[in-house]
Amino acid sequence: MPQPDHICAYPIPDAHTLDDDLQQVFGKCIDKLGLVPNVLATYSIRPQRLRNFMAMYNELMFSESGLSKLEREMVAVVVSSANRCYYCLVAHGQAVRALSGDPELGEMLVMNYRVAQLDARQRAMLDFAWKLTTTPAEVGPADRQRLHDVGLSAEDVFDLSETVAFYNFSNRVATALDMMPNREYHGMDRPEPFQPPVPAPKS
Amino acid sequence: MPQPDHICAYPIPDAHTLDDDLQQVFGKCIDKLGLVPNVLATYSIRPQRLRNFMAMYNELMFSESGLSKLEREMVAVVVSSANRCYYCLVAHGQAVRALSGDPELGEMLVMNYRVAQLDARQRAMLDFAWKLTTTPAEVGPADRQRLHDVGLSAEDVFDLSETVAFYNFSNRVATALDMMPNREYHGMDRPEPFQPPVPAPKS
Amino acid sequence: MPQPDHICAYPIPDAHTLDDDLQQVFGKCIDKLGLVPNVLATYSIRPQRLRNFMAMYNELMFSESGLSKLEREMVAVVVSSANRCYYCLVAHGQAVRALSGDPELGEMLVMNYRVAQLDARQRAMLDFAWKLTTTPAEVGPADRQRLHDVGLSAEDVFDLSETVAFYNFSNRVATALDMMPNREYHGMDRPEPFQPPVPAPKS
Amino acid sequence: MPQPDHICAYPIPDAHTLDDDLQQVFGKCIDKLGLVPNVLATYSIRPQRLRNFMAMYNELMFSESGLSKLEREMVAVVVSSANRCYYCLVAHGQAVRALSGDPELGEMLVMNYRVAQLDARQRAMLDFAWKLTTTPAEVGPADRQRLHDVGLSAEDVFDLSETVAFYNFSNRVATALDMMPNREYHGMDRPEPFQPPVPAPKS
Amino acid sequence: MPQPDHICAYPIPDAHTLDDDLQQVFGKCIDKLGLVPNVLATYSIRPQRLRNFMAMYNELMFSESGLSKLEREMVAVVVSSANRCYYCLVAHGQAVRALSGDPELGEMLVMNYRVAQLDARQRAMLDFAWKLTTTPAEVGPADRQRLHDVGLSAEDVFDLSETVAFYNFSNRVATALDMMPNREYHGMDRPEPFQPPVPAPKS
Amino acid sequence: MPQPDHICAYPIPDAHTLDDDLQQVFGKCIDKLGLVPNVLATYSIRPQRLRNFMAMYNELMFSESGLSKLEREMVAVVVSSANRCYYCLVAHGQAVRALSGDPELGEMLVMNYRVAQLDARQRAMLDFAWKLTTTPAEVGPADRQRLHDVGLSAEDVFDLSETVAFYNFSNRVATALDMMPNREYHGMDRPEPFQPPVPAPKS
Repeated sequence: MPQPDHICAYPIPDAHTLDDDLQQVFGKCIDKLGLVPNVLATYSIRPQRLRNFMAMYNELMFSESGLSKLEREMVAVVVSSANRCYYCLVAHGQAVRALSGDPELGEMLVMNYRVAQLDARQRAMLDFAWKLTTTPAEVGPADRQRLHDVGLSAEDVFDLSETVAFYNFSNRVATALDMMPNREYHGMDRPEPFQPPVPAPKS
Repeated sequence: MPQPDHICAYPIPDAHTLDDDLQQVFGKCIDKLGLVPNVLATYSIRPQRLRNFMAMYNELMFSESGLSKLEREMVAVVVSSANRCYYCLVAHGQAVRALSGDPELGEMLVMNYRVAQLDARQRAMLDFAWKLTTTPAEVGPADRQRLHDVGLSAEDVFDLSETVAFYNFSNRVATALDMMPNREYHGMDRPEPFQPPVPAPKS
Repeated sequence: MPQPDHICAYPIPDAHTLDDDLQQVFGKCIDKLGLVPNVLATYSIRPQRLRNFMAMYNELMFSESGLSKLEREMVAVVVSSANRCYYCLVAHGQAVRALSGDPELGEMLVMNYRVAQLDARQRAMLDFAWKLTTTPAEVGPADRQRLHDVGLSAEDVFDLSETVAFYNFSNRVATALDMMPNREYHGMDRPEPFQPPVPAPKS
Repeated sequence: MPQPDHICAYPIPDAHTLDDDLQQVFGKCIDKLGLVPNVLATYSIRPQRLRNFMAMYNELMFSESGLSKLEREMVAVVVSSANRCYYCLVAHGQAVRALSGDPELGEMLVMNYRVAQLDARQRAMLDFAWKLTTTPAEVGPADRQRLHDVGLSAEDVFDLSETVAFYNFSNRVATALDMMPNREYHGMDRPEPFQPPVPAPKS
Repeated sequence: MPQPDHICAYPIPDAHTLDDDLQQVFGKCIDKLGLVPNVLATYSIRPQRLRNFMAMYNELMFSESGLSKLEREMVAVVVSSANRCYYCLVAHGQAVRALSGDPELGEMLVMNYRVAQLDARQRAMLDFAWKLTTTPAEVGPADRQRLHDVGLSAEDVFDLSETVAFYNFSNRVATALDMMPNREYHGMDRPEPFQPPVPAPKS
Repeated sequence: MPQPDHICAYPIPDAHTLDDDLQQVFGKCIDKLGLVPNVLATYSIRPQRLRNFMAMYNELMFSESGLSKLEREMVAVVVSSANRCYYCLVAHGQAVRALSGDPELGEMLVMNYRVAQLDARQRAMLDFAWKLTTTPAEVGPADRQRLHDVGLSAEDVFDLSETVAFYNFSNRVATALDMMPNREYHGMDRPEPFQPPVPAPKS
C-alpha cells in the first residue's frame, strides 16, 4: 500500500487564510527550505500556539549556546529514537546528515546511538538525553556531574536539559496528531547512490 | 535532615538585575500569588527562554479551549505523576486542590489517578495523558477515537495532546535542574486540620 | 465529581457484630487516633486475618528494632510510592509528616524519594526498599553489603527486609480491594496555611 | 561448583536455645514433614516475628476458604514465578506437585503458567495473581469483575488478594535474606524416573 | 568523528584463506550484490557456522512460503527495530526499500511500524512480530488466532514465527559482535535527491 | 485438569511419511535418547528447515569450542528463563542436571540464576546471556571486556554470543507454536526421592 501523504490526523487551514505574519513565515520557509515543514502546517490549527512553538524552537536550536547546532540536532534525534517518533526522526535525522556531512552518523543516531563513534563529551550528552527521556525520575546529581566532567557548564546543562525536554514535547505532539514528515527529507543528504550489479527484483 | 530550600541545582541571577519586563512579571507574581514560582526564577538563568516558556505556558493553561482550566491542571498532575516530578506534582497538585475545591482529588491524581471517581470524559483524557507520557510510540488512531467517543473535538485533541506534551517538557526541565517548589504550596487548599485525641510522639 | 467515601470495594460487617476483642481494638483506635483506620474495618470481613494482620503490623512498626519508628514509616511510604498505593501513601505519608515534623519530607517520599536530602544510611535504606520492591529478583549480596557499609547489622537488614516486604503485602491488599484511606489523614500535620493575595477562582 | 547449603545469608540461632513453643513447632515439623522448613529456621532470628509469620501463613493456607488448598499453592507459585523467588518456587512448586498429583502442572506454574491447561476459574485467578504482583497500580474494578464472572464471591476475592499479597511478602523476605530451600523438596513428588538408552556423559 | 569502518569487533580471516566453497559464495556475492555482506565476513571466523547460517537464512528468506519475500523483509525490519540492531536495520531496511519500491515504507518500519498504512494481514503479522520479540512469554492461542483471522495457514504461522525468531537470533549476533553494515546500503533505493534553495551550512 | 500431551499447536506429519534421512535421525534419537524430541517432530512440518535447525544446533552444542558442553547448556537455560520458555526450560534444565550431576544447579538456573554459586567466568557468561537476551540494544564494548577479563577469547565470545542468540531463536519458535516438551524429561536426573513421614493429602 502506498504510504499516506496526509499532513496530520486532522484537517488543517488553508494557508492563505492565516494571519499575515504566519503567511510570511510560510513564505520564507518555501524560499529557504523549499517546503513548509508539516509541523508548522499542523500547528496552524491553533495560530497563537504556532507562534509560541516557533519562538521556543528557534531560540533553542539557533541562539548562542555552548552546544553546537549539530549537537542540538543529535540530541533531537536520540530523544526521538527513544520515543520512536517518525516525524522527528525523519526531519532531524536529515538535519544531522546535513550538518555533520556524515550520513552514517544520522542513521546511527536514529537506530541506536550506542554504536556511533563519539567523543566523550557527545557520548555523555547523548547518554543524558536517553536517561532524561526514558527514566526522568532517576536523574540526579551524579548525572549532572558526569556532564560537568566532560566540560559542560551550568548554562550548558540548562540548554541540554531544555533541548531534551523540548523533543519530549514535540515527539508527543507529533505522535498524538499523527504528523507525517514532508517527503523531501528522505532524499536529502544521502550518500552517493550505489547500484548492485544485479538489481533486486521488485516483489 | 531538614529539606533543602535551594531554588535549583545552579545559582540564579539576582532578580534586580533582570530586564524590566521580567522584573514586572515577577512583581505581578508577588502581587497576585504572593510568591515568584521557582520555575520562573530558575528560567531567569536564560532570560529569552523564560519569555518563551511563559508565553507557551500562559497560552496553554489560560487561553480559550474546550478543556476547562481544572482539566488542564488534572492533566498536568497525571503526567507529572507518571514522571514522578516533585516540582510539578507539588505546584499543580495545589492547583487541582484549589480549582476543584476537592483536596482528595488532588492527592488521588498525584498518587494514582485510577482510584479517582471521574466521569467518562475525564477518565478518557487522563488515560490518554498516561499513555502518551509513558508509551508514546504506541499511541494511534484508536486512542484518538476514544477521545472523540467521549465528545472531544479535533481541536480539543490538539489542546489535550499539547498539554500532555508540555508537562513532559516541564517535568524534565524541573527534574534535570533539581528545581524545588516554593514551600508555600504545601499549606494551600488543604482540608480542615484534624487532631487525633492522642498526638503522635515526635521520633 | 465528589470523591468516594466507601471503605473498600465490598460491604463490611457492622462493627457491633464483631467479637469483643476486635470491638475493644476499634474502641481504642477511636480513643487514641480519633478514627478506626479503614484497613482494619476492611479486614473485619475476615476476623482471624484481622488479628494476624494487627499482630504482624504492631510488631513490625512498634517493637524494638535498630530502625527508628520514623525510618520504618519512611520505608512504608517509599514502597507504597513504587507501587502507587493510594491508601498507604495517604496513611503513612501522614505518619512521616507527624514523626519527622517535616511536612515536605512526607511529600518528597510520596512523590520521588530521590529528591529528599537524606543521610547516607537513610538513602541506602530507601534505595534498598525501592529495589526490593520493583526488581526483587535482582537483589543480592552487593545490596546487603551496601546496607552494612552504612552501619546496619544483620538484624537490621532482617527488620528492613521484612518491613519492605510487609508494605508490598499491604499495598496489594489495599489496591486489590480498593480501600480508601480515612479522610482525616489529609488534614493532619500540614504546614501553616498560606493564602495568596488573590485567591484562585474555582473552575 | 557444588551449590550452597546455607540456610540464609546470616547466622541463625541454635534451635535448642529457642523458646519452648518454637521448639515444639520445630519438633512437629520434623515429625510430620521430616524437616524444619528453612524459612522458619531463618525467622527464628526474630522469634516474635516467626510466631506472627506462622499465624498468618497457617490461617491463609489451611483455614476454610472458597479457594482450595491446591489453588492457594498455585497462586503461591505463580506469584513466586513473577518475582523469580528461588526459595518459594522450590517449596511451593513441590506442594503443587503433591496436591495435584500432576508433576507437570507444578513445572508449568514455575516456568510460565500461561502454557498450562486450566479451567476458566483457575486461569482468571492466576491472571489476577500475575497482574497484582507485577503491576499492582493498574488493578481496578474490571479485574475484580473478571473474578466474579468465574464465580468468586467477595470473600473469595479477599482471600485471593491476601494470598497474592502474602507471597509478595514472603518472596521478598526470602530473596533479601538469600534463603535456600531445604534440599529434600527437589526429590519429592517427581514422575517415574526415565533412563535414556545411552546415558549422557558427565561434562 | 568519522564513523567506523570495521567489519566487527574482532579480526576476521583473509577471505583468500577460506575453504573453496566459501570463497565461491563470496565471489558470487560480489558478482551479484557488488559486495560481501559484513555478516558473512564476520561469520567466516567460524566457517562451519557460516555454512549453517547461510543455509538457514537462504531457506527462510528465499524458499517457497505463504509469506512474500517483501513480507519476510518487513518482519526482519520490525524485529530489528524492536531490538534496535543497527546492522540489520540498515541491511534489511534497504531490502524493504528495494522490494517495495517505496522508500518511505522502509523508513517507517525502521522507526515505528505503527505509522505505516498497511493492510490487515501485514499489520497483524507485524504486531505478532513485535510481541513475539518483546514479550515472548505472553504469546498464546489468541495471538495465533489473530493471524488465522487474516488468512494465515498453520504453515504460514510456522514460517512467520521462524522468521521472527531468526532475526532475534541475528540481531543478537550482530549487536554482540558490533557488526557494521556495508556502507553501500545507505545509498541504495533512496528517493530522488531534493535540494533546498538555500543549503544548510555545515556545522 | 490433566496437562496437554500435544506436541505443538498444529498437526504434524506421520513420521513414516518423512524423507529417509529424517526417518534415520528420528530412529537414532529413539535408540540413543529413548524419544524423539518434540522440537524435531514439530519442525518436521517443514522438512528442509528441520535439517537446517539440526545442523546449526549440533554445531553449536557439540562442536569444539572454548565453552564446555555444560556451559552451553547453562546458557541455554538462562536465556530460556529470561524468556520463560517452557519447552526449553524443561529440556535444557534436564541437560544441566545430567551434565553437572547437580540437580539443584539446574533448578537454580531455571528459576533465578543469580542465587547459584558460580565461579567468576560462569557468572560473567550468564550475566552476558541475560543482558543480550533482555536488553540487546544496550550491549557494548564494556560487556565484551568483562568476558575477556575472565578469560574468554574472541572466538569464545563469538560462540557465547551465537549460543545466546540461538536460544532466543528456539525459545520464540517453541513459544509461538506452543511446543510441549516430552514428558520423560521431568523424571530424569532428579535427586533421590524424599518421602515425608506424613504424606500430604491429595486435594
